[in-house]
Amino acid sequence: MKLPGQEEFETSSAGENVPAGELDNVLGPGPDVPLDTDSRDMVVPNNPMLFIQLNELVGWPQALEWRETGRWVLFEEKLEVGAGRWSAPHVPTLALASLQKLRSLLAEGLILLDCPAQSLLELVEQVIRVESLSPELKEQLQALLLQRPQHNIQMRGTKLCWDSCFVESTDIRKDSHDEDAPLKEQHRNPLRQKLPPGAEAAVVLAGELGFLARPLGAFIRLQNPVVLGPLTEVPIPSRFFCLLLGPPMPGRAYHEMGRAMAVLLSDLQFQGSVRQASNLQDLLAALDAFLQKVTVLPPGRWDPTARIPPPKCLPFQHKRLSSQVWEVRGISGLRGAPAEDRHHHRGPHMPNPELQRTGWLFGGLVQDVRRKALWYSSDFLDALHPQCLSAVLYIYLATITNAITFGGLLGDATEGAQGVLESFLGTAVTGAAFCLMAGQPLTILSSTGPVLVFERLLFTFCRDYHLDYLPFRLWVGIWVATFCLVLVATEASVLVRYFTRFTEEGFCALISLIFIYDALGKMLSLARAYPIQRPGSPAYGCFCQYPGPGENVSQWTRTKPNDRDDILSMDLGLVNASLLPPPECTQKGGYPRGPGCHTVPDIALFSLLLFLTSFFFATALKHVKNSRLFPSMVRKVFSDFSSVLAILLGCVLDAFLGLATPKLLVPTEFKPTLPGRSWLVSPFGANSWWLSVAAALPALLLSILIFMDQQITAVILNRTEYKLQKGAGFHLDLFCVAVLILLTSVLGLPWYVSATVISLAHMDSLRRESRAYAPGEAPSFLGIREQRLTGLMVFILTGTSIFLAPVLKACTMYQEMKAWTSSDVSTKVGHLDSWKFMKRVKLLLMPAKHQPDLLFLRHVPLSRVHLFTAIQLACLGLLWIIKSTPAAIIFPIMLLGLVGVRKALEWVFSPQELLWLDELMPEEERSIPEKGLEPDHSFNGSDSEDSQLMYQPKAPEINISVN
Amino acid sequence: MKLPGQEEFETSSAGENVPAGELDNVLGPGPDVPLDTDSRDMVVPNNPMLFIQLNELVGWPQALEWRETGRWVLFEEKLEVGAGRWSAPHVPTLALASLQKLRSLLAEGLILLDCPAQSLLELVEQVIRVESLSPELKEQLQALLLQRPQHNIQMRGTKLCWDSCFVESTDIRKDSHDEDAPLKEQHRNPLRQKLPPGAEAAVVLAGELGFLARPLGAFIRLQNPVVLGPLTEVPIPSRFFCLLLGPPMPGRAYHEMGRAMAVLLSDLQFQGSVRQASNLQDLLAALDAFLQKVTVLPPGRWDPTARIPPPKCLPFQHKRLSSQVWEVRGISGLRGAPAEDRHHHRGPHMPNPELQRTGWLFGGLVQDVRRKALWYSSDFLDALHPQCLSAVLYIYLATITNAITFGGLLGDATEGAQGVLESFLGTAVTGAAFCLMAGQPLTILSSTGPVLVFERLLFTFCRDYHLDYLPFRLWVGIWVATFCLVLVATEASVLVRYFTRFTEEGFCALISLIFIYDALGKMLSLARAYPIQRPGSPAYGCFCQYPGPGENVSQWTRTKPNDRDDILSMDLGLVNASLLPPPECTQKGGYPRGPGCHTVPDIALFSLLLFLTSFFFATALKHVKNSRLFPSMVRKVFSDFSSVLAILLGCVLDAFLGLATPKLLVPTEFKPTLPGRSWLVSPFGANSWWLSVAAALPALLLSILIFMDQQITAVILNRTEYKLQKGAGFHLDLFCVAVLILLTSVLGLPWYVSATVISLAHMDSLRRESRAYAPGEAPSFLGIREQRLTGLMVFILTGTSIFLAPVLKACTMYQEMKAWTSSDVSTKVGHLDSWKFMKRVKLLLMPAKHQPDLLFLRHVPLSRVHLFTAIQLACLGLLWIIKSTPAAIIFPIMLLGLVGVRKALEWVFSPQELLWLDELMPEEERSIPEKGLEPDHSFNGSDSEDSQLMYQPKAPEINISVN
Repeated sequence: MKLPGQEEFETSSAGENVPAGELDNVLGPGPDVPLDTDSRDMVVPNNPMLFIQLNELVGWPQALEWRETGRWVLFEEKLEVGAGRWSAPHVPTLALASLQKLRSLLAEGLILLDCPAQSLLELVEQVIRVESLSPELKEQLQALLLQRPQHNIQMRGTKLCWDSCFVESTDIRKDSHDEDAPLKEQHRNPLRQKLPPGAEAAVVLAGELGFLARPLGAFIRLQNPVVLGPLTEVPIPSRFFCLLLGPPMPGRAYHEMGRAMAVLLSDLQFQGSVRQASNLQDLLAALDAFLQKVTVLPPGRWDPTARIPPPKCLPFQHKRLSSQVWEVRGISGLRGAPAEDRHHHRGPHMPNPELQRTGWLFGGLVQDVRRKALWYSSDFLDALHPQCLSAVLYIYLATITNAITFGGLLGDATEGAQGVLESFLGTAVTGAAFCLMAGQPLTILSSTGPVLVFERLLFTFCRDYHLDYLPFRLWVGIWVATFCLVLVATEASVLVRYFTRFTEEGFCALISLIFIYDALGKMLSLARAYPIQRPGSPAYGCFCQYPGPGENVSQWTRTKPNDRDDILSMDLGLVNASLLPPPECTQKGGYPRGPGCHTVPDIALFSLLLFLTSFFFATALKHVKNSRLFPSMVRKVFSDFSSVLAILLGCVLDAFLGLATPKLLVPTEFKPTLPGRSWLVSPFGANSWWLSVAAALPALLLSILIFMDQQITAVILNRTEYKLQKGAGFHLDLFCVAVLILLTSVLGLPWYVSATVISLAHMDSLRRESRAYAPGEAPSFLGIREQRLTGLMVFILTGTSIFLAPVLKACTMYQEMKAWTSSDVSTKVGHLDSWKFMKRVKLLLMPAKHQPDLLFLRHVPLSRVHLFTAIQLACLGLLWIIKSTPAAIIFPIMLLGLVGVRKALEWVFSPQELLWLDELMPEEERSIPEKGLEPDHSFNGSDSEDSQLMYQPKAPEINISVN
Repeated sequence: MKLPGQEEFETSSAGENVPAGELDNVLGPGPDVPLDTDSRDMVVPNNPMLFIQLNELVGWPQALEWRETGRWVLFEEKLEVGAGRWSAPHVPTLALASLQKLRSLLAEGLILLDCPAQSLLELVEQVIRVESLSPELKEQLQALLLQRPQHNIQMRGTKLCWDSCFVESTDIRKDSHDEDAPLKEQHRNPLRQKLPPGAEAAVVLAGELGFLARPLGAFIRLQNPVVLGPLTEVPIPSRFFCLLLGPPMPGRAYHEMGRAMAVLLSDLQFQGSVRQASNLQDLLAALDAFLQKVTVLPPGRWDPTARIPPPKCLPFQHKRLSSQVWEVRGISGLRGAPAEDRHHHRGPHMPNPELQRTGWLFGGLVQDVRRKALWYSSDFLDALHPQCLSAVLYIYLATITNAITFGGLLGDATEGAQGVLESFLGTAVTGAAFCLMAGQPLTILSSTGPVLVFERLLFTFCRDYHLDYLPFRLWVGIWVATFCLVLVATEASVLVRYFTRFTEEGFCALISLIFIYDALGKMLSLARAYPIQRPGSPAYGCFCQYPGPGENVSQWTRTKPNDRDDILSMDLGLVNASLLPPPECTQKGGYPRGPGCHTVPDIALFSLLLFLTSFFFATALKHVKNSRLFPSMVRKVFSDFSSVLAILLGCVLDAFLGLATPKLLVPTEFKPTLPGRSWLVSPFGANSWWLSVAAALPALLLSILIFMDQQITAVILNRTEYKLQKGAGFHLDLFCVAVLILLTSVLGLPWYVSATVISLAHMDSLRRESRAYAPGEAPSFLGIREQRLTGLMVFILTGTSIFLAPVLKACTMYQEMKAWTSSDVSTKVGHLDSWKFMKRVKLLLMPAKHQPDLLFLRHVPLSRVHLFTAIQLACLGLLWIIKSTPAAIIFPIMLLGLVGVRKALEWVFSPQELLWLDELMPEEERSIPEKGLEPDHSFNGSDSEDSQLMYQPKAPEINISVN
């Protein structure tokens, strides 16, 4: 496979120094260089990537030798001479003085552009020829320039040290003293595999040379890049060659000049100019253009020896690079998101095409189907990537975790009308159907918090009024499906533009709070079920009574003590009894007697301990991702499977102590949890017919809830920063949800809508990233592998897991369920954390001088920020109160009320403030002129300060995980 | 009080703009400006601190007004226009282009040096006069320049926001529209109190002015500084005035030039030059000199809009500043530790004068006494500072915590031969005596881990061989005192120079491990004492038996079941019994019968929960210090009293659940814990006479241990980074310890030596820091308040606490003791963390590319670092094994063996490597030429890279706390 434009390159660089076999490796992708679609986009060969290395002459006057002391691609790596290792990549800092010295040296020196040399020898001869030196000195210089330099090649820089470093350091020593080593060494260099094919090298030679009378500067651009033998540490052809030698000068002047030259060459604009330069003036002009753009740090405020780590985001290049140079997308060009690219993505002010009203009945649905049909085949072909396999595994674990947790919660909420089996079955069936039919196959259909809360309220209502739950629920489902169809028909989904961050944050915060509250509530309820025994509590008394020969046992049963006073006065009389523990007593035909027989000590506290242990263990494992210890692979496994590992720990601890902790009920047969019902719910059951009409009222509330839950997830997933290419399907998704709700109601399965957290995790596990070619470069986010297959696989696996129930039962404990719930809570908390809302709540507690440099703090007065946060907190509090009162069932309407509150905020805050703190609603967008959306500054041009910060190519902030 | 040199200042600056009353405030320290000894040192009036502000002309052409948009002292603060607040201080970054533009504008502009203007009006007239403008334009310009600028004054920037921000923002609005406000506003500015007296202002006015045909630049140095009315936000006299106006230019050029001017003026060297400049050429030369020293960041690698937070340590100024300018110690001069200062401190290669051998018997002791006698009165006078009071409170809490913990541990170890009362009494008596007599009164005498371990071994030995413990211990003490006196006489303390970091780290790591092991062991022993009840365990059976009329109780006592088989077959027969809980049963005259009567459920798990809760709570509170939430005062209280708060939490939880958790035995009477002994230990007791001679053997071991424990603490405390002024007293301290060991042996109290952690915490609570005058400036460490009074007060308080025992008992629980122990462990862990050793152990697990930029990693190959760490770990493992075997009692000798191992390492590592990884031993220092101690580089001058990092004025790394 050849890249376009590589042909000329191939013929020209076939220099004599390179064996033919080697050359292939340089040009085509070697076996170790996977050249997938991503990297193919990046390398445009007419301006290839440049690897720059600085060889320094050391040891004057005794033992002259060249040593590579620095290298650059994007950032600088320095040789730590004593330690014999490369420094971490860092932003290069220069002294202005050395740049100026370099400029004057170049101005007086030798400039050869398009030098036709074919080897190092020819090149050196060209350089020496024009120098005014005596013949002996010329010879001496030539010998010196041809001398093999010392490279510091670290074999496996990223490997864990205790198994490689001892070997590695001896390797280096051996290599550098072995005469045949250089080319072998060059080829074994791991850096070579990192550089993209077609990369070129630039060599800067600098140092003090005592026998020179005056400085010797030379800059050579080779007509065709040539592999200069052992000069470079990687065997790639060199394009530039720069020589900076001279009599000793104070302060390592040549070293600094060499670094300055290398930094210049690593600058894309300078590189572009110097590739096209035709004479010295062009070269100097390029240097001056560079100088015009440098950032200057004052001397007294910044230690020049401090190393600045590579920034997360490089500044935009498009401001500096002309459109022609801009074609160079290699490396940093791609990072500084091109200006055109920004227009391809829908900005916050441009409504999605999916959200334009067509005006016809079901118009949006038809449009969605048409749009998605185009992608349908690619939705399966795009899944052919190994990354999808690991995504399936990860999301599958998250999904069954979720199914078990929700099954357990549902079982609790509906007192056994539905349970774990329904949860599994429903997840598998609806999930798979959704993946095949929906507009947005990346969203994972799942039972969610608000719907569960509603289901619990509905059950309580039915129980209180003695209604038959599942038939009533069936009618609610039928009505919900009807209402949703009406919403689809009327294209109501376009209203999601009114769901701003304010609404999303309120909604999500409420869900998180409900979960945290529930998890803690479950813990406390355990303490009631297994009371902790205080001194003096009557839990001690228990003995085993055997019915004596001919005695009447029923007498005992009647006098079973009801309270403590009974015990005190109870005369045991003439009985056969022993102190056998209750289970063994029953086994032996006896009867356990006394108040202490039914108390199980230690369970409540042990459960609490297990809960805390698994929670903190999972949290700690999740944080391993950001730790510096362990190789990145190990860290990824730890954090991705943190909850599974935490559950295993819980199981082991529980099994080790062998306490009678409560266990989760796992079905052993494939039949509904509620005894005696068939899979199809009977349409009326014991209910009267008019209830099927009355069900429309709760259905209206549930419809609002489902619409909000479904669409808020869709809005979050379709944020521009995720760079989705295949578009959303708001109408189609809602249609699918409606159909599936009908199905689940008929079968008595839980109701499902799109779940935010797990869908985000799904997208995150499918992110495409650019390969980092330069040391220190952070990979950039390219997009998501949008396809239907991973989701489908996940739900097929979930479906087959139903038959794993006996296996699950062996190790599944109630404890685990709690661990899962607690992990889920921690996810919600982590999710909360990523909201701007939480940042603002923290600001309330933070003294002004410790506040981080958040963009909205630069533009909105602190008092206004706090007011906005306070209003949000008040709304949340109100929602919580409503949820806790008997009027709880109307909370979906109150959630919708958030949109109204947000609308009312327009009277309190200016559009600019709302733009910074939230987003704009459709009308507001129209009310502000396009220009006015820029931050409000009273003098012109002042927004240059942070316009770059504002429009930085946002990497998606998926810093959550489902475990 | 007047500062030298202020007289001329006073007469000259009494301008008409300043009311006489205001002037006083400017010159003398106002009531709000405490001028203590520290700040008096810092402000040298002949080069006062400069406050620079940039007033920018905005609103052209409609509504011209001046607005202050930036200010500088050391760092830059920008006005966030939209938010109406100052940005956090940050390192200013400039574009090179704007510096060059500024240079050409100044070169063509008006330069007035030593302008005699006495007011803003005169100044403006001077500027306008020389301009070639039409009279109307001149008038317009003059009116504009006299216009009052808008300042953004934040009243209490550091206050917590929710009680001030709402008020503040309205304040600003009101102020800026009130005509009389400016001067009031200026005086209410909190910045004014931050600036040191004598500070001067510089005003830069910049902006676009459409009616000007060509740029107008003016730089004026006032002969005498003048308060320029409302021009500056603080009412201090201005020395410099710079005007940069002109026709509109793209890219906020005037703003950038104004910033460049301000940054130049904030540079100490430029400031010095421009104060002495006599013409334009001097000014331009100063600018060029600045340019020569700037650091340059390449454009494509650094976003110029990124704000760099102030570095922890500013670069040295002495390299740039001439000796004359160097006299300016204000602000950054003091931070970049002067070159001379470094010689005042003992470098690592210069042996302490205290550690020079005199060659006479007791020569070192005599020298110590002589040296310390000189400081004796100041040791009390220096304590007169409010900081000492809070130090007393903090260290007192730590000391009684320690005394109780050790008392409990000692009681456990010696099975009640000594206890909490002995611990309190001994701490108070020996501590107070040591504070009065010792050479290093900052060290806190305390019972320490190794000595406790030895005491436990000694007790076990005595118990096993049926010796009378306390008399034998008395003889050991007598011998130890004798051996220590011999060590003092022979000046053995000079050998501490052989205790390098290697030895210290091994010693401290062993202590930490012992503590962690003990704390966990105590937890597990609880689980044995209060077993957790598994299902089927016989803990259920318990009932209450009443002796029937005429029946024999003893029959029951004999048949008390021993094992489960007994229970199974036991026939209860004819008895009166009830299921009353055991305590009530006993009360009613019955007898609790059965295996379940003596088990207390839930205790073990609850204790574990309390232990974990208090441990994590204390740890979390300690970390509050580094949080951004809460004002710094609140954070300090939380972290300083973290263990007290954790104990309170534990008490509350314990009291809330009311479980029968084990409690600590607190003495109620002032008498020895061992029943029947008097305060004076009898010299022989039941032991035979020859044991008093044999005691010399364990005494020898203990002497080694005490010598090492005492002197390692002394070495750590006398590290140069703590900047102790009054010197150490190695010999004197050892002498005091010997005397006190004799005393404690006679009285049967625990043995005491200097404790590292608590002594470091003591020093930390007494650190003197410079006041930060500039926003963003970190206060620099000046030294420690060395005195005897805080320690004395602490031990007097500890002594009186003995009589608080009944109070303590009411709330002191065993639980708390464990909490204390666990806090102590966390301290030890935290302490471990600060050792280079732990850093190196972490490196073992860290992939090379994630390793932090540690100095020794730049100079020593990773494999050598790992080898050194591995050897240290092996030594630690060996020590642990020895401690766990029956040969444990000889572990002091093995500790001493660490010194030998370190000596042997000279065969494995080069002196350079040992210098980086450890320190040098005396002989090694001699073996390397003075120059050779610099890092080993094979080419000259290369160490300039990090010599600054290496000699940075080390702030003491006391990042530990005793809680």
